[in-house]
Amino acid sequence: MDFAEKLRNISRQNQSLLCIGLDPDPALMPGKIAIYDFNKAIIEATSDLVCAYKPNFAFYEALGDEGLAALKRTVKGIPSRIPVIADAKRGDIGNTSRAYARSLFEVFEFDAATVSPYLGFDSLEPFIAYSAKAIFILCRTSNSGSRDFQTLAVETGQGPRPLYQIVAEKAAQWNVSGNVGLVVGATYPEELKQLRQLHPEMPFLIPGIGAQGGEVASTVKYGVSPGGDKAIINSSRQVLYASRGADFAEAARKVALKLRDEINRYRPGFQPQ
Amino acid sequence: MDFAEKLRNISRQNQSLLCIGLDPDPALMPGKIAIYDFNKAIIEATSDLVCAYKPNFAFYEALGDEGLAALKRTVKGIPSRIPVIADAKRGDIGNTSRAYARSLFEVFEFDAATVSPYLGFDSLEPFIAYSAKAIFILCRTSNSGSRDFQTLAVETGQGPRPLYQIVAEKAAQWNVSGNVGLVVGATYPEELKQLRQLHPEMPFLIPGIGAQGGEVASTVKYGVSPGGDKAIINSSRQVLYASRGADFAEAARKVALKLRDEINRYRPGFQPQ
Repeated sequence: MDFAEKLRNISRQNQSLLCIGLDPDPALMPGKIAIYDFNKAIIEATSDLVCAYKPNFAFYEALGDEGLAALKRTVKGIPSRIPVIADAKRGDIGNTSRAYARSLFEVFEFDAATVSPYLGFDSLEPFIAYSAKAIFILCRTSNSGSRDFQTLAVETGQGPRPLYQIVAEKAAQWNVSGNVGLVVGATYPEELKQLRQLHPEMPFLIPGIGAQGGEVASTVKYGVSPGGDKAIINSSRQVLYASRGADFAEAARKVALKLRDEINRYRPGFQPQ
Repeated sequence: MDFAEKLRNISRQNQSLLCIGLDPDPALMPGKIAIYDFNKAIIEATSDLVCAYKPNFAFYEALGDEGLAALKRTVKGIPSRIPVIADAKRGDIGNTSRAYARSLFEVFEFDAATVSPYLGFDSLEPFIAYSAKAIFILCRTSNSGSRDFQTLAVETGQGPRPLYQIVAEKAAQWNVSGNVGLVVGATYPEELKQLRQLHPEMPFLIPGIGAQGGEVASTVKYGVSPGGDKAIINSSRQVLYASRGADFAEAARKVALKLRDEINRYRPGFQPQ
C-alpha cells in the first residue's frame, strides 16, 4: 500500500484531516515523563482522531542519543495504518540525499518526509524514487522569515511570479509517481488559496494552525482539494501541551477531537458518519 | 576563541585551506573497519594538513544509532585546535531551529554548521546567536540541480539578478557578528568569482573539487579573499577513498598533502614556510 492509499484509508476511517506534530519539548511536558512514554500516551489517546503523525527530528536530536532512540521507538509503535511523516526538511547533493532517504525510509521506517527545494531535483530524486513513500516539498512556509526568499518575484518570460509558485510548479512536474506534495503554511491563507487553485489535486501538508496563528476555517476552505481532502492539517503544541498535569493525554484528546471536528465542519461535501 | 580565529590559527599553523569531508561510506571503505576507527585513522593521518573537518550527517544517520554514536565520538576526538563543520543543511521555523542549533552546537559540539536559506532569517537566527560558532548558508551549490532554483532571475528593481546572489546579499546583511559564510560550489567557477567580488571578506565553504569535477586552480584563484584566505576548500571521496587497502590512511595522507600544496600554489601572496 503506498502513502496516498494509506492516507486516504485512515482519513476515511478516522474521518480526519488532522495531523499531530509529535514535538516533545521537556520544558512544556509534564514533569519527569520520558519522551517515549509521553508520545505513547498522546498516540494512544488520539489514534482514532488523526490522519497522520509528524515528529520533527530537531526536538529528538536536541536530546541526544536518548532522543533519537525515543523517536525510533515512537515511529515503530505507531499503528501501521497511520502514516508517519518525518519532519526533517532534508536536502543535499545526490549521493548524500540517497543516504538521507535511506535513513528516513529504511532505518526509521517513516512513510513520508519533508524536504527542502533549494538544491533542486537531484537532491529530491533519491526520495521520490521510493514510490511507496512520499515527500512534501517546502513551498510557502508558515514562519515570518518565509518572506525573505519565498515571495521574491521571479522573471518567467510571462511576467514575474513568486518563487514559491515556481517551486510548486517544479514539484508538480516531478510528481510522475504521485508521491510529491507541498508544505504550505496556514498562516498565509491567500497564498494557500492560490496554490490550491493552481494544484487542485496535490497533497498539501499544512502546518501553522493554533500556536502559530492560522485559522481553521480559512485553512480548510482554501487548503483542501475540490473533493474536500488531500490536506494534512498539522497541530503540535496546541494538542501536546493542552495540560501539563497528569491528565495531559486526556486533555490532548479533547483538543484533537475539537480540532478534527472543526476541520470537518468546513470540508465541502463532508458528512459525518 | 571564536570560529574565525580558530580557523585563522589552524590555517596558518597547517598552511592549509583544505577541509576533509568525513563522509564514511561502507561500500567504499576498507572491509570490516568500524566507522569511528576509519575516521580516527584518517584524522591522525591528516591533522597537520587541514584547516577543518566536515562530517556530513547523512552518512551517519543512514547507519542508524551506531552511525550517530560514531559521529559524536569522531567530533569529540578531533584535536580542539581544528574546527569541525557539521554538514547538516538544517533550516526550520524558529522554535525548531533553536532545537537544531542546540543539538549541533551543544550536544555534538560542532564549531560550525551548514544551513539552508529557504525559510529565511528566523530559521537561521538561532544559529547566528551562537556568536562563537559559525554558519555557512547554502548559496550556489555544487550539484547540477542547483540550476532549478538558485539561478532563477529575481526582479530587484535594478534589473534581474540570480537568486543565489540575493541569498548572498541577505547573508551579508545578517552577518553582524562576523560568523556567517556561504557554501559555493567549485563546479561553477564563474559564479564563484562573481560572489567573491561581491563579498571579498566573507568566508566561503567550497565543496566540489575532485570527485565532483571542480578544478583546484580556478577554485583557489576565484574563491579566496584578496588576502589569499577565507576559503575552506573541501574534498571528501578523493581523500577518504584513495585506497581500499590496509594503507588507506597513508594513501589519504598522500592525496591530502598533494591537494593542500596544490591549493597553496594558487594562493596570491602565499609563501610556504
